[in-house]
Amino acid sequence: MFSSLARCASRAALHVLKGTSRPSKPGKVPCFGHQTLAAVPLPTVGGTTVVRHAQVLDHKRLLQVEWDDGSYSFYPFTWLRDNCQCPLCMLQSAKARSLLLTDLDVHTGMDQVQITENNKVSITWPDQHSSEFEPDWLKKRCFSPEARQARQEELFLNEREFWDSALQIPMADFEAVLHDDKAALAWLVALRRFGIVYLKGAPVEQGQLARLSRRIGYLRLTFYGHTWQVQDKPMANNVAYTSGKLSLHTDYPALHHPPGVQFLHCLQQAQQGGESEVVDGFHMAELLRREDPEAFNTLSSLYIDYTDTGSDYCDFIVQSKNRIIDVDCEGRVVRINYNNATRDSTLDLPLDQVQPFYSSLKSFVELMNRPENVVSYRMEPGDLVTFDNWRLLHGRKNYSSGGRTLRHLEGAYLDWDEVMSRMRILRKAVHGDS
Amino acid sequence: MFSSLARCASRAALHVLKGTSRPSKPGKVPCFGHQTLAAVPLPTVGGTTVVRHAQVLDHKRLLQVEWDDGSYSFYPFTWLRDNCQCPLCMLQSAKARSLLLTDLDVHTGMDQVQITENNKVSITWPDQHSSEFEPDWLKKRCFSPEARQARQEELFLNEREFWDSALQIPMADFEAVLHDDKAALAWLVALRRFGIVYLKGAPVEQGQLARLSRRIGYLRLTFYGHTWQVQDKPMANNVAYTSGKLSLHTDYPALHHPPGVQFLHCLQQAQQGGESEVVDGFHMAELLRREDPEAFNTLSSLYIDYTDTGSDYCDFIVQSKNRIIDVDCEGRVVRINYNNATRDSTLDLPLDQVQPFYSSLKSFVELMNRPENVVSYRMEPGDLVTFDNWRLLHGRKNYSSGGRTLRHLEGAYLDWDEVMSRMRILRKAVHGDS
Repeated sequence: MFSSLARCASRAALHVLKGTSRPSKPGKVPCFGHQTLAAVPLPTVGGTTVVRHAQVLDHKRLLQVEWDDGSYSFYPFTWLRDNCQCPLCMLQSAKARSLLLTDLDVHTGMDQVQITENNKVSITWPDQHSSEFEPDWLKKRCFSPEARQARQEELFLNEREFWDSALQIPMADFEAVLHDDKAALAWLVALRRFGIVYLKGAPVEQGQLARLSRRIGYLRLTFYGHTWQVQDKPMANNVAYTSGKLSLHTDYPALHHPPGVQFLHCLQQAQQGGESEVVDGFHMAELLRREDPEAFNTLSSLYIDYTDTGSDYCDFIVQSKNRIIDVDCEGRVVRINYNNATRDSTLDLPLDQVQPFYSSLKSFVELMNRPENVVSYRMEPGDLVTFDNWRLLHGRKNYSSGGRTLRHLEGAYLDWDEVMSRMRILRKAVHGDS
Repeated sequence: MFSSLARCASRAALHVLKGTSRPSKPGKVPCFGHQTLAAVPLPTVGGTTVVRHAQVLDHKRLLQVEWDDGSYSFYPFTWLRDNCQCPLCMLQSAKARSLLLTDLDVHTGMDQVQITENNKVSITWPDQHSSEFEPDWLKKRCFSPEARQARQEELFLNEREFWDSALQIPMADFEAVLHDDKAALAWLVALRRFGIVYLKGAPVEQGQLARLSRRIGYLRLTFYGHTWQVQDKPMANNVAYTSGKLSLHTDYPALHHPPGVQFLHCLQQAQQGGESEVVDGFHMAELLRREDPEAFNTLSSLYIDYTDTGSDYCDFIVQSKNRIIDVDCEGRVVRINYNNATRDSTLDLPLDQVQPFYSSLKSFVELMNRPENVVSYRMEPGDLVTFDNWRLLHGRKNYSSGGRTLRHLEGAYLDWDEVMSRMRILRKAVHGDS
C-alpha cells in the first residue's frame, strides 16, 4: 500500500511546484495533481544588506536610511530608542527588552548618527546613551507595507492554498518526519499551507502520537486526556465514541481556544464503513461569502453557545461562545468553530435572529457537503493524518461495530503556537535564516 | 502571621457582603474592607416552574408558553425541533445532539402542542416525531433579554468588581480549599469577581501548585514547563529569572491565547526587596477609556507583535500578535496583553501610527503605575497567590540576590475554561443547581 502511494506522490511533484508558485487567491481553486512535500516552497532568505547613508529628519523625528540598492527606509526615533540592542537595554540571554517603558522617553530627540566601519548604524541620544543597529536587522524591520507583509508572512505563513475534492492529500513518511529535519519542515509547512498532511508507515500501536508530538514540543492536554481513543464505547461521553456517522465538524468549539492541530492515528479500521471525509473550511467560508453574503455575515457575527459535559480525564462542564465563522478585524476568516453535537440548546440570540441563524447555518452546511468540495479517504492501520482543526471540517461515515475487528483510532491535539514555533526552529536549522 | 491575617479577614466580612450586593459599575471603585471568601454571593437558583398554557403561533412559527405567574416566553419552531431531547435526537450519555443538521427541517411547521399530566410541553411535528420539554429547562432558555442575561451570567460570571489600592486581597486557607467544596467554590468565584485570591498555609515545598491544580483539573503546560521556578538564574531565559525589577505586566502575551490564571507559591523570600505589586487591568482600561479615549482606541485596535525565544521545557521561537487592550465585538475589555520585555522589535504598523502607539502606551502605563491604583504585598514562605492573568497586571520590586536566602517562587498556569468548568461542578455540588 505504501509503495503505490509513494509512486503516486513522486509522479506529481511538478504539479505542486507550479501550483504553489502562484499567489493564493481566495475563491480560486488550483487543480492540484498528486503531491509530495518536498515541493512545498519556503519563504526566501535575504542576502547581506549594506547601508549607504543615514540621515536624521529632525522635524519628522525619523531616521532615513539609504540602502546600497538606492531604496530608503524610515525609522521613528522612539522605536529606535525603544529597541536599543545594548546589554543595558536588552537581557541578551533571554533576547528580551530590559529597558522599562517608564524609562523610555517617547519624545526623545537624536543627537548624532553615523555609519561605523563595519557598516552598522550608530546613534547617540541626547543623554549620551548610544545604540548600534545591524543593517540586516534594521531592513527586516522596515515599516514599508511590502517589508511588513514579507516579515509577517515569514513569521506566520498565513497564505493558504484552497482546495476542493480534487485535492490529493500531501503525504510523507512517518519515520522520515521524526528523524529528518527537512522532512519535518516540509510536513509542517504543508500542514500550514494546505491544512492536511497524511503520514504513512507509523507502527501500529498506541503511543506514536506522543512520539510525533515530542518532535514538535508537547501535546495539548484536554478533558479527554493527553491522547484519546476513538472507539465504539458503551455509555459514550462523546458522539465520536459511537459507530454512528459524524457529520463535518471541527473539534472542541466548546473551548474558547479550540485545539489548532489534530492528529489521528489508525490502529484498526472497521470491516465496513468508517471512511473519513474532510473539507477546506476557509475555502467553504469564502464560497459562502460569495454565494450567500447574508448567511456569511450572520455566521461571522453571531456568537453561538457550545457545551460539553461529562467525565474522562476528570469531570467537566465546559461552556463557550464562538462564532461559527470566526473572522479577524479585517474580515479575514481565521477559524471555523462548528460541531453540531456540542452546539448548546442555550442560544443567546434575540428571538428575531434565531431563524436567520438556522437558515444561514443550513446554507453553510449544504455548501460544505457538496460532493465537489469533499475529499474522502479510508485510513488503514499505520496511517496517520495531521490536520488544521481551525480550518478543516472532518467527519466519518458510520461503520459496522462488533465482530473481530473493532475500529480504533488514537487522537491528540496541539496548538498552532507550538507547531509554528517548531516550524521556525526547523527553518533555521535547515536554511539558517532567523 | 496566618492567625493575624485571619482575624483581619473575619473582622471585615460584612463590608464585602455590602460591597458585592451592589451591581458593579465600571469606573466606580467600591471601597472594600478586609474580606473573607464566605461573603462572596453566588447566582441565585430558580424554583420549580409551572406551565399554564401553550399556544402555537403559526404565522410567526413560534410557540407561546404562558407560565403560572402570568408571564410569557416564545420559542421558535426550528429551535424546538433542533433541541428535541428524545433518545433519537440526543445521545443521552454524552448530553450531546445526535440529530444532524442535514436532517433538520429549518422550515418545519408544528402539528400539535399539549401540556402533559406532569406539566411537560409535548409537541407533535408534521412527520409525527414528538418532543417533550421540561418547564424548568424551557424557562431557563427563554429568549427574552433578561432571561438571556441571567443565563449568561450563570454560565460565565462575567460581572467583575473593580478595585484600586484600597483593595484588601480576598484570602482563604490553602488546605480548606483543597478539601472543602464550599471553600473551593468561594475561592473560584472570588478569583473570577475580583481577579485575585491569596491562599495562606501551603506547605513550604515544591509540588503544592500541582496539588492545587488537580483540585481544578490540570495545569497548562507551556515552554517553561508544567510548573516553573522563579529564581535569579545565570543566563536567564526570561527577565523574571533575574533579581531585577519587573514592571507591571501580564504573563505570556507571546502566546495567542495567554494563560488565563496564574498561581505563584512563595518558597523563600529575599531578605531585602522582592515585594509584589498588582493592578486591576480591566479597571485601568476603563479609566483610560474615560481619561484618554484616543489612547484607549489606539491600544484596543492595534495588533502588537510579541516574541519569546529560548530553551526550557524544550527550545522555542514563539511569535504572536495581540491587542494590548483586547475588547469583544461590543467594545467590552476582555483581556490585557502587555509585557514590555517580550514586546517584539518587529512592529507591524504603518509609519504614521508608530508614535501614536508609543504615546498611548505611555499614557496607559503611567495610569496603571499611579500609587492610588497599585496594591502591594510581600509574600512569605507558604503564601500562595492565585490571579486572573487576563485581567491583572503584576510586577515585583528588585531584590538583593546572593547570601543564604535565595528568593524562590514556584509558578504555574491554568486556563479559564478549565477553572470555570470546576466552578460549575462545585456550584452543582454545593447548591444543587445545574
